[in-house]
Amino acid sequence: MSSTVDISLKLLSRSLGGSVLVKLRNGKLIRGLLQGYDQHMNLVLEGAEEIAPNAQVTKLGVIIVRGDNVVMLSPSVIRTEEGGQD
Amino acid sequence: MSSTVDISLKLLSRSLGGSVLVKLRNGKLIRGLLQGYDQHMNLVLEGAEEIAPNAQVTKLGVIIVRGDNVVMLSPSVIRTEEGGQD
Amino acid sequence: MSSTVDISLKLLSRSLGGSVLVKLRNGKLIRGLLQGYDQHMNLVLEGAEEIAPNAQVTKLGVIIVRGDNVVMLSPSVIRTEEGGQD
Amino acid sequence: MSSTVDISLKLLSRSLGGSVLVKLRNGKLIRGLLQGYDQHMNLVLEGAEEIAPNAQVTKLGVIIVRGDNVVMLSPSVIRTEEGGQD
Amino acid sequence: MSSTVDISLKLLSRSLGGSVLVKLRNGKLIRGLLQGYDQHMNLVLEGAEEIAPNAQVTKLGVIIVRGDNVVMLSPSVIRTEEGGQD
Amino acid sequence: MSSTVDISLKLLSRSLGGSVLVKLRNGKLIRGLLQGYDQHMNLVLEGAEEIAPNAQVTKLGVIIVRGDNVVMLSPSVIRTEEGGQD
Amino acid sequence: MSSTVDISLKLLSRSLGGSVLVKLRNGKLIRGLLQGYDQHMNLVLEGAEEIAPNAQVTKLGVIIVRGDNVVMLSPSVIRTEEGGQD
Repeated sequence: MSSTVDISLKLLSRSLGGSVLVKLRNGKLIRGLLQGYDQHMNLVLEGAEEIAPNAQVTKLGVIIVRGDNVVMLSPSVIRTEEGGQD
Repeated sequence: MSSTVDISLKLLSRSLGGSVLVKLRNGKLIRGLLQGYDQHMNLVLEGAEEIAPNAQVTKLGVIIVRGDNVVMLSPSVIRTEEGGQD
Repeated sequence: MSSTVDISLKLLSRSLGGSVLVKLRNGKLIRGLLQGYDQHMNLVLEGAEEIAPNAQVTKLGVIIVRGDNVVMLSPSVIRTEEGGQD
Repeated sequence: MSSTVDISLKLLSRSLGGSVLVKLRNGKLIRGLLQGYDQHMNLVLEGAEEIAPNAQVTKLGVIIVRGDNVVMLSPSVIRTEEGGQD
Repeated sequence: MSSTVDISLKLLSRSLGGSVLVKLRNGKLIRGLLQGYDQHMNLVLEGAEEIAPNAQVTKLGVIIVRGDNVVMLSPSVIRTEEGGQD
Repeated sequence: MSSTVDISLKLLSRSLGGSVLVKLRNGKLIRGLLQGYDQHMNLVLEGAEEIAPNAQVTKLGVIIVRGDNVVMLSPSVIRTEEGGQD
Repeated sequence: MSSTVDISLKLLSRSLGGSVLVKLRNGKLIRGLLQGYDQHMNLVLEGAEEIAPNAQVTKLGVIIVRGDNVVMLSPSVIRTEEGGQD
């Protein structure tokens, strides 16, 4: 259990290259490989796809998501830092 | 009864590791273990789940909630500071 | 009748420990004991409860309300400054 | 006819202690005695009441209105500056 | 045809004392004599009235309009600067 | 094909005096001669008119559009810089 | 797989001159050749067209999109940096 203030950026950093699920303000759900982010939570996703409420999937390819549209983000896999020092 | 101005960050700090209930602007209710936060009220929750109005629960896992979507947050348990120095 | 510019923070200060009624942007009405606040009107309420339009009450316990969701706030009791120094 | 840039703060200043009518973003109409304000148009009103479209009045007492909810504000009485220098 | 960057403040300045029509974010239309403004487009209008879609007019008197509610503003008369230097 | 960062202000500059079409957040479409702008995309339009979805046109005259209501702007004619220095 | 913080500006830079698909807050979908952008994600698009949900296309020509209306942006072609220095 970590408790640093910048834990969200740390979590984003450890999610790089992995699949993330992003819920947007307009209610849309986006899934993709996290290729980059910044402190505004602007995101670059690769192989992104929109998942409709009925589970229908629309391919989006590479996308930039503007951070202020993000409600929440969930990494599906988090790289652990085994054997390394922070 | 404390009355310092930064009481909300203090309360967040004392809620770390405990379960919190978060009400979002889109009306959604999220519950999870508070793993981190920052001054914008960006939150990192572990074992998060969305609670629908009909009490149906959807597992979300680890999530980052962007602070400007937070309406209110309620810690279910607050660690008291007995016998310790802050 | 006071007329200082910072009268709202002063009023919040004098309401500490007392019950306040908070109207939120989502139309919800919250009542609780004001335990803290800051200049963004982030609030910490104790013994908070949500009051539905039909007067039904939902217990919320201790909550942090993010200031930008506050429409208005009404202290039910204001401590007067009789005989005391601020 | 005055034409200074800070005319709105001046008008608020001259309305202190008098009754003002405030239209909020949520469409509500509030009336009360203006006891204070700041540059964000945060307002403190005394003897405030909400006026419903059907003219029904709800007593609110002393309230703080967060400035970013204000659409417009109308002083019912403006103190003139007869015989005084500003 | 002028092309300076601060043309909007200039246009407001030249509209002082004249009638302006203001369209608000809530869809309302306000008409009044422009008595003041600032760089946020906060406006002070005298003899203001709200014009309903059905052309019904409601008297508002002197009002302060918070700038971030303004969508657009149209001066009905613009003082020309004939024979004067700016 | 230009690729400078300030290309949008450059495009606005080159559109001065020409007709522009502006889409607003409230869904309205405005057409007028661009007389001025600033870095917030506040616009001054002359001979402005609102174009309803059914193509009905309402004359607005000279208007100031507050930049944060602008979704997009399209110049109908762009002055080319042939034979001139910027 | 790059992981720098400014990856979104880099991606925009590499998309210059190519076709991009832009999803706006109002739900509209815009396609056009990216001619410019800035750090607010203000965009200049050439040959822009709006794509309705029923796939109907409306020609918009050259447009400026105000960045705060952008939800996400997808370059259809990304120039690779083979054999060149940035």
